[in-house]
Amino acid sequence: MARIVQKFGGTSVADLDRIRNAAGRVKRAVDAGDQVAVVVSAMAGETNRLVDLVRQAAPMHDAREYDTVVATGEQVTAGLMALVLQSMGISARSFLGWQLPLRTDGLHSRARILGIEDKDAIARLEQGQVLVVAGFQGVSPENRVTTLGRGGSDTTAVALAAAFKADRCDIYTDVDGVYTSDPRIVPKARKIDRITYEEMLELASQGAKVLQTRSVEMAMNHNVPVRVLSSFEDKPGTLVAAETQMEQEIVTGIAYDRNEAKITLQGVADRPGVAAAIFGPLTDSEINVDMIVQNVSADGETTDMTFTVAKPDFERAVEMLKAKQAEIRFRELVADSQVAKISVVGVGMRSHAGVAQRMFQALADKGVNIQVISTSEIKVSVLVAEDYMELALRALHTAYGLDAE
Amino acid sequence: MARIVQKFGGTSVADLDRIRNAAGRVKRAVDAGDQVAVVVSAMAGETNRLVDLVRQAAPMHDAREYDTVVATGEQVTAGLMALVLQSMGISARSFLGWQLPLRTDGLHSRARILGIEDKDAIARLEQGQVLVVAGFQGVSPENRVTTLGRGGSDTTAVALAAAFKADRCDIYTDVDGVYTSDPRIVPKARKIDRITYEEMLELASQGAKVLQTRSVEMAMNHNVPVRVLSSFEDKPGTLVAAETQMEQEIVTGIAYDRNEAKITLQGVADRPGVAAAIFGPLTDSEINVDMIVQNVSADGETTDMTFTVAKPDFERAVEMLKAKQAEIRFRELVADSQVAKISVVGVGMRSHAGVAQRMFQALADKGVNIQVISTSEIKVSVLVAEDYMELALRALHTAYGLDAE
Repeated sequence: MARIVQKFGGTSVADLDRIRNAAGRVKRAVDAGDQVAVVVSAMAGETNRLVDLVRQAAPMHDAREYDTVVATGEQVTAGLMALVLQSMGISARSFLGWQLPLRTDGLHSRARILGIEDKDAIARLEQGQVLVVAGFQGVSPENRVTTLGRGGSDTTAVALAAAFKADRCDIYTDVDGVYTSDPRIVPKARKIDRITYEEMLELASQGAKVLQTRSVEMAMNHNVPVRVLSSFEDKPGTLVAAETQMEQEIVTGIAYDRNEAKITLQGVADRPGVAAAIFGPLTDSEINVDMIVQNVSADGETTDMTFTVAKPDFERAVEMLKAKQAEIRFRELVADSQVAKISVVGVGMRSHAGVAQRMFQALADKGVNIQVISTSEIKVSVLVAEDYMELALRALHTAYGLDAE
Repeated sequence: MARIVQKFGGTSVADLDRIRNAAGRVKRAVDAGDQVAVVVSAMAGETNRLVDLVRQAAPMHDAREYDTVVATGEQVTAGLMALVLQSMGISARSFLGWQLPLRTDGLHSRARILGIEDKDAIARLEQGQVLVVAGFQGVSPENRVTTLGRGGSDTTAVALAAAFKADRCDIYTDVDGVYTSDPRIVPKARKIDRITYEEMLELASQGAKVLQTRSVEMAMNHNVPVRVLSSFEDKPGTLVAAETQMEQEIVTGIAYDRNEAKITLQGVADRPGVAAAIFGPLTDSEINVDMIVQNVSADGETTDMTFTVAKPDFERAVEMLKAKQAEIRFRELVADSQVAKISVVGVGMRSHAGVAQRMFQALADKGVNIQVISTSEIKVSVLVAEDYMELALRALHTAYGLDAE
């Protein structure tokens, strides 16, 4: 007997047959004696339809009205899921964000959760009622509908699991777990049975789009074990949880990101305040910078500064920097959007030397040139020419012993 | 400068072009200095789509979940309408039933309005904000979404007009007003400029489906002038309002109803309590009886009892009565569903003799046999064979001088 939150994504509730399939999983847990809260996304395609209507209505739209319209997708699924569960003989009822209530701030379309009323909800769970909660939505201090941003249903699920002190949060999706790398590129990628929150964060933010980064952060902060598993197959999936005492794999997975572009400012004056002069204007324009590398000055006067930005911000960043050339004082701007970032991730590398070296050697063996290197406690990332990405990914997967038998 | 409620039905908000057209009408009122609350229905077809999903989910559905799903139709339109108004430079925001709040009882899918919080809303109207209210929905004492039943958006609009002490409630629809008869049958039917609530009630419940009966009753009780007009044409429409001092037309309109069936019980004992014995079981089964005619007993012992029920209840009523033949004691049951009811309506007939006689004469002249007659203060109804309905309708329209030039 456990208390669990089960979350079903858009493809898992795409039509009534799939909603019935998902309800079958809820029923199995209920039959096993579990207390269950269910979080549902909008039926696949529905959110896009609604967003499209909003854009047609007003290209520059009021985010409060956007939220009012878009939140209906999850509302519909919540009602339908409650009905299907009832028809299976299960006591169930839907809850909308404002009914729970799930309180958020007033940052419409990307609201942050402030708190969840748990008393009535927990009492219902203890009485055996299944709560079907519309994901992705909440209510603002002004009593308006808010949404948590794309993928927000994962966050809803983890937040509920934390508030209800659930034993586990199960995220049902259309993949059967988290993989050591993208199986479409690395055919020998293996499913990971267990992964730490930190590793998951690095993998997720680097391109392994299984769980929303935000929901993983929240799970880590509240120590909620999260299981990622398939709606369509009976497989154990991947458990995302705190680090255990057991010895960790040195490298858990290898992620990639094609969505960055590289900018190098050559001949920048090597003086205090130059980094602020470069990155201040970018920050003001809400352009996020990811990797930053500054070489030691060779001549003692000028240096090169290389950094990456998201591709959608690339042209804007380049224009802005060129416009400020006199102010920043650099000799030349070299831009390259044909790059890819590859990251080797694993909590085990904290206590193991030579992890980065193995990466550099494996890439050298294949003739892959490394453009930029950046490291953190549990991750080593390199920037390579985009053309070499797949080759590099497979080489590293083999080099770290991750290949399936 | 007036305070008005404008209601737009499903065909008037069927897509974004039509929503823009409707918003244009709102803007015209705002530009004229009016304070405007807008009530919107779901986009045409949307409610049917949602009802269909609910039925697929569970044929015997929980009305609370039904309401949760179906109310999203109006929620989407309210958000879109607010966005379109904003893009026209108008200060506007959406209100859902629970936000206003519009409080109802807990009779889900056919909830009755208990009250509307008007203080904040009126303050907003006075500040020049356009309130866009999702029609058809409210919130129950248990804090759940309720719906008012089909056509409930008309009722929302009139209830808001009453609560906000509006000068007028404009119902925009796909017809340009109320007609003296159905123009599809009576080509010479004329649009009525002004009609009393009582007449409108008789016409609406008799088959002139322009306004929901319930909304007309509410308008009458709160003395809200209602204007029915077209979203697509600039015509003044029909004003539904209290009787004025001016002399009334004797007959305002001629309605028909194909949806009734006739049952005659022959040889019923002419004794006290026989009517109760017949109609008690029907009432218990929620079968409504409309016209009832009992002839004076010819032989002093038995009589004939004729009455009409709605066609969907017809077979059930016949079976039930046959099963109770011994109890009720009648000789024979004669049933006929091939009938139509025609009603001549007008408040002027209160003070004019000969209205019924003119009806009987006109029908006799055309060889139409009258099966049952029933009268009220402002209405004379007759039942005729369904085949004769159109003929009778046109003959009466001419006889009462209603034909257009």
